[in-house]
Amino acid sequence: MSLQELIRDMGREARNASKALRIADTKQKDTALRLMAELLDSRRKEIVLENTKDLDQARKANLSTAMIDRLTITEAVIDGMIQALQEVAALPDPVGQVTSMWKRPNGLMVGRMRIPLGVIGFIYESRPNVTVDAASLCLKSGNAVILKGGSEALNSNLMLASILEQALQNSGLPSKAVQVVPSTDREAVKFLLQMDDSIDLVIPRGGEGLIRFVAENSRIPVLRHYKGVCHVYVDESADLGMAQEICFNAKVQRPGVCNAMETLLVHQAISRQFLPPMYERFKNAGVELRGCEKTLEILKDIVPATDQDWHEEYLDLILAVKIVSNMEEAIDHIDRYGSNHTEAIITSDYQRAQRFLAETDSSVVLVNASTRFNDGGQLGLGSEIGINTSKLHAFGPMGLEELTTTKFIVFGNGQIRT
Amino acid sequence: MSLQELIRDMGREARNASKALRIADTKQKDTALRLMAELLDSRRKEIVLENTKDLDQARKANLSTAMIDRLTITEAVIDGMIQALQEVAALPDPVGQVTSMWKRPNGLMVGRMRIPLGVIGFIYESRPNVTVDAASLCLKSGNAVILKGGSEALNSNLMLASILEQALQNSGLPSKAVQVVPSTDREAVKFLLQMDDSIDLVIPRGGEGLIRFVAENSRIPVLRHYKGVCHVYVDESADLGMAQEICFNAKVQRPGVCNAMETLLVHQAISRQFLPPMYERFKNAGVELRGCEKTLEILKDIVPATDQDWHEEYLDLILAVKIVSNMEEAIDHIDRYGSNHTEAIITSDYQRAQRFLAETDSSVVLVNASTRFNDGGQLGLGSEIGINTSKLHAFGPMGLEELTTTKFIVFGNGQIRT
Repeated sequence: MSLQELIRDMGREARNASKALRIADTKQKDTALRLMAELLDSRRKEIVLENTKDLDQARKANLSTAMIDRLTITEAVIDGMIQALQEVAALPDPVGQVTSMWKRPNGLMVGRMRIPLGVIGFIYESRPNVTVDAASLCLKSGNAVILKGGSEALNSNLMLASILEQALQNSGLPSKAVQVVPSTDREAVKFLLQMDDSIDLVIPRGGEGLIRFVAENSRIPVLRHYKGVCHVYVDESADLGMAQEICFNAKVQRPGVCNAMETLLVHQAISRQFLPPMYERFKNAGVELRGCEKTLEILKDIVPATDQDWHEEYLDLILAVKIVSNMEEAIDHIDRYGSNHTEAIITSDYQRAQRFLAETDSSVVLVNASTRFNDGGQLGLGSEIGINTSKLHAFGPMGLEELTTTKFIVFGNGQIRT
Repeated sequence: MSLQELIRDMGREARNASKALRIADTKQKDTALRLMAELLDSRRKEIVLENTKDLDQARKANLSTAMIDRLTITEAVIDGMIQALQEVAALPDPVGQVTSMWKRPNGLMVGRMRIPLGVIGFIYESRPNVTVDAASLCLKSGNAVILKGGSEALNSNLMLASILEQALQNSGLPSKAVQVVPSTDREAVKFLLQMDDSIDLVIPRGGEGLIRFVAENSRIPVLRHYKGVCHVYVDESADLGMAQEICFNAKVQRPGVCNAMETLLVHQAISRQFLPPMYERFKNAGVELRGCEKTLEILKDIVPATDQDWHEEYLDLILAVKIVSNMEEAIDHIDRYGSNHTEAIITSDYQRAQRFLAETDSSVVLVNASTRFNDGGQLGLGSEIGINTSKLHAFGPMGLEELTTTKFIVFGNGQIRT
């Protein structure tokens, strides 16, 4: 069988599995999730063994230490997978929820009911635990999933998939509800992206290169996350102590992630008071600052920022700083350079808080809180399969509900249209 | 300027206009909509004059009477446009609505706020009143729109656009919020469909050919409606009088539309009782029946149905009829031949009503009501810009809310992530 035929078969199997999953009840899905957790626990040795094969090849291929770290399945990583499965099993099932219902003048009761999307294509790099996370969220939301992980993790992913498959089978659910593409060939991704008959949504997760490749080659709708150029705007009315804590947290607590602050915007009226102590604290934490001209007048020993700095997602201990004359200038700056990801305002002014919330065009907008809260778990979605910075279907972190859609249900008693 | 440059410029203008529209308040948008209605009323002669140019060309090109009918702007058509504008002005503004809000254990208040999508590309055929309908719904939901109508309606559409533009300008809104592509070149559509930087969503409306062309050539997400192969299943427990009224309405009241019934599924237990009088009524209304083998045993003088009939969207006074042994067989038939559009069950059985609602995978599922209610206005959405039979973003009729997305808004008081 050619690779293309193999991928097409997987699509057909997934579509069939999705028909059974659509009507699977919550208990059945949760039983499967808990059984997955049990089987991962009892088959730790086999998992580690397959992972060792991937690690050996990765070392031979001279992959970076960081990549090998991400690829390694330790006992703690397996514990994490087990915990994630149990957490997803404990989340409410979105399928069948009626989100609203209303009555029409002719007596028809009209409601919207959550239903699964169908089949999801999930394309990702590195970390094999993502295989388990993505599979569990798709299953709980009633969707079949085709997983295409990084080629460096193939042995690990196939092992994990065979365990998940066994749990599905033992729970009376279709074993093809979760499938891993058994190939390292990049052509496999291209074939997947053409199958708009059997896949309803594609979610890529990984570097910008992977995501652009998927977006440019897909005939299937893609929910994607390009970059997080996140801003914090410190207003003239801000509680400066609070502003300092939030800015420090947003930049330093975990600089390598998409919801870390990349640019700090400071109202000029409090810039002389706010910036010097903030700078001291950043300097002590090893943060390099790059400032606009006005900032350089206050912080004389930092690097000047270029236009490129305002576009930059550093993912590192580097921060661009700009002094603005007012909130409008801050919002304009965000509009021009932002990535629709996460923005925060620190303010004690009621009107400005409301205006910033309403006018800033990002997936998460916060008042007096750290940008680091843009995360499905932190916002109360339970878990997340990714963050979408395009606006269709779901904007921002995607949890279980975002893996569903709604259909209209109508209760009548003989109504006809006249 | 080349056509491509022209289309790109329109995209840039639309993106800029969308930034102002995003924060326009309800009153401003409603004022613009009412002014559009007034201007259409006061400039009737100019509209009819431009329409006459299109009609002359249409006659020279030997377009069908039906097409010329659809193209014609009569006084009544203008009245309809005016009324539609006033109705949209009277609808609630979805932008800024907070659809839900919850509190996190750390005190963060997290909500979801409706925001516009940005820029919509609307590609359609024939009827010039669609220009006004689509523009009004996009404007009210805070979106800029680029309209590409059929080439046969270009003069009419450009005239209407110039009136809408004037109303926008006089209301202090960006005049480029509504733009009509001033070209009959099909290449223009191709250029539009490549501009994923400046257009957020494409909605095609028209024949299957147009929709497939758009879906296959677009880099931008497309919400589309292929066909409506709608089913009514008459259960053994149905009130047969009610079933007859609903089936007659679903087939005969307006057979040429997507939510008319195309296949009737009848439980075998009541088929001998239900079908003969139903057939009489259909025959008197000029409906041709095509039946399965079991149906032919009861209705001896009708045409046998072929496999193709179960796939068919007749859009005409033709109906396929199949007798099923039980509801499961009806649901399986719908799964196999349906188009995820509209299905109805006629039943007095509580459990079957609930199961049919839950298990049928269509955008609108009704109990004891006509399929003809799959319509934004009829379901209470106010108005509709189209019906989406794919599942992403919005499934089924799309009103104002479906032209928005939600962002997360977060009220904190100093929360940081630990």
